[in-house]
Amino acid sequence: MTPETLYFTEESLRTFTEQVFEAMGCSKLHAQRAADVLIKADMRGIDSHGVARLAGYFRLWEAGRINTKPSFKVTKERISAANVDADGGLGLVSGPFAMELAIDKSMRSGIGIVTVHNSNHFGIGCYHGMLASSKQLIGICMTNASPLVAPTNGKSRMLGTNPITVVVPSLSYPPFVADLATSAAANGKLELLQRKDLEAPSGWMQDAEGMPSTDPHVLKKGGALLGLGSTPDTGMHKGYCLGASVDIFSGVLSGANYGPWVPPFVAFLPLAHHPVGKGIGHCFMAIDVDAFRERSEFLEHMDQWIVAFKSSEPIHRDEPVLIPGEPEFRQEVLRKKTGIPVLIPVVQDLELLGRRIGIDLEA
Amino acid sequence: MTPETLYFTEESLRTFTEQVFEAMGCSKLHAQRAADVLIKADMRGIDSHGVARLAGYFRLWEAGRINTKPSFKVTKERISAANVDADGGLGLVSGPFAMELAIDKSMRSGIGIVTVHNSNHFGIGCYHGMLASSKQLIGICMTNASPLVAPTNGKSRMLGTNPITVVVPSLSYPPFVADLATSAAANGKLELLQRKDLEAPSGWMQDAEGMPSTDPHVLKKGGALLGLGSTPDTGMHKGYCLGASVDIFSGVLSGANYGPWVPPFVAFLPLAHHPVGKGIGHCFMAIDVDAFRERSEFLEHMDQWIVAFKSSEPIHRDEPVLIPGEPEFRQEVLRKKTGIPVLIPVVQDLELLGRRIGIDLEA
Repeated sequence: MTPETLYFTEESLRTFTEQVFEAMGCSKLHAQRAADVLIKADMRGIDSHGVARLAGYFRLWEAGRINTKPSFKVTKERISAANVDADGGLGLVSGPFAMELAIDKSMRSGIGIVTVHNSNHFGIGCYHGMLASSKQLIGICMTNASPLVAPTNGKSRMLGTNPITVVVPSLSYPPFVADLATSAAANGKLELLQRKDLEAPSGWMQDAEGMPSTDPHVLKKGGALLGLGSTPDTGMHKGYCLGASVDIFSGVLSGANYGPWVPPFVAFLPLAHHPVGKGIGHCFMAIDVDAFRERSEFLEHMDQWIVAFKSSEPIHRDEPVLIPGEPEFRQEVLRKKTGIPVLIPVVQDLELLGRRIGIDLEA
Repeated sequence: MTPETLYFTEESLRTFTEQVFEAMGCSKLHAQRAADVLIKADMRGIDSHGVARLAGYFRLWEAGRINTKPSFKVTKERISAANVDADGGLGLVSGPFAMELAIDKSMRSGIGIVTVHNSNHFGIGCYHGMLASSKQLIGICMTNASPLVAPTNGKSRMLGTNPITVVVPSLSYPPFVADLATSAAANGKLELLQRKDLEAPSGWMQDAEGMPSTDPHVLKKGGALLGLGSTPDTGMHKGYCLGASVDIFSGVLSGANYGPWVPPFVAFLPLAHHPVGKGIGHCFMAIDVDAFRERSEFLEHMDQWIVAFKSSEPIHRDEPVLIPGEPEFRQEVLRKKTGIPVLIPVVQDLELLGRRIGIDLEA
């Protein structure tokens, strides 16, 4: 245990988180689901997306920006496709709802794509994608997010960090989980540098004039994140293309807001004056591999793919080639034993929240 | 006209290219289609993928690696999904065949995904994607390719430059075309540096020991390309995740080869001894936007998306923010007037090819 963190059992954090969502007015079922998404992030070591965000959701609800008693409605539907109005609810709940609909559709027709509008942040993409892989299907999901990233050639923040998640099952290994923001920098890592006032690597950000910057506080000074690829020479236009595609699938296709209109996650920032859609948007896809080749054959070849990459020659003998999702899976195994380390400022944040609604956070 | 190029009319290059494919044994229809894909690349300014590759296809055929009289067969099918055995044929022909099947499926069920195995290189992804956008559908395509890219932490070439293409129609603008290799470097740009013996930008390649390299010839010395993101700090693992996902969709899902087993495009390199599948693989997807929201509404919002990005503030006044696909569309308009500039070495290559099969290349 480092002095910077306190350890909690999975169960105690889960109970606390459920209680907070219930205090916000969520049904027992919704509170359990929302907590499950956040705790999964903490278990997998994606600490930026776990209970560290709980107070953020609470403040959004206080600001009247989250409907904790939503009624999800399918606004348009075909055999393989649907669009869901999340009624201003938590993406943590509308996400699994939509992915499960996509899974149903994929089992009937081979593929299911379900978009969601009028939603809020959905937590870690891999939670939703793994709903598909647990049924031996491929799961894909995307979401747009409030604008932080500048397009190539541009000064302004026009795109969110717009992540893409691809989860693929195999026979004998944990699922392949590619889960990546389409920006160069992980926002969580940037927050860490801000707290310690350390310079950021070059290639993450630009200043208000569009010049490269390593100032960890430059976003507060009118700067922007850069797309994956970072510089014109190393393909920053590709990050822009990917982030834009995620925005179109999540926002334009669903009827949510897109580009600079996507509402912020933090309650203290104002909403756009003339929204072009409703809330933020997501896109979920489930693919039944058995529609393309025998399921058992596919799963065996995924094993072979994984073995080939794991056993390919490493640059440094002690740093092997990893399969996407492998580090997070290892964290999950570890934290099942050790419990979840939570940063002291996050613990204080949670305790404050607990006192406000009259519940205790137990270590 | 620069002294390095000669201009040809679209029609004369098209006729010549069709004749070459016919000389290889393609039917008139297949030759027309294959030529259409290559000429589209030249028209859009993607010169590395146009007639510059014609001699390469010819040599592959000579080496017995392309079946010019293929019989495409659907090996597995569901309402929204199919897998096609391309019978060792040209990807330039099996690609449009598969995309048209995906389009049919999307019109019935909302979505169509068609994978292809036992195929060869399919040219520019945007050709296939634009078959969908010309019908006001979204088109996506991917292909795997022979291994040139190292995974994060790895020394060996395990993935191709594995491109992803996303084409989205709008009401009043040319389609949005995101078309990107998942490696940091465009191979075409690297070839140019090799020809001129110029140092490459850092972030493109590593040497045989896995150390960063700017030697344009390092691939011939056991080096590898780097994934999009280039360095651990700027997200190279994301490029690895993307390239791996494309490989799984194109290769593992279809029953083609994948990873280090994908056959090379150049005829002088040997095939893998123990292939894990058939040929190379592709994945095509068509999405009927009308399955999610009214088509007219979607197209109007795509216009608004495009306007918002085009009018966002540029860093340099004379370099506006571009919409993905815009530079290539401008080239197409330009080259409709000027004709197609072809590099002198490529012209010589084509003339040689023409003499071998007894046809003339007319400027």
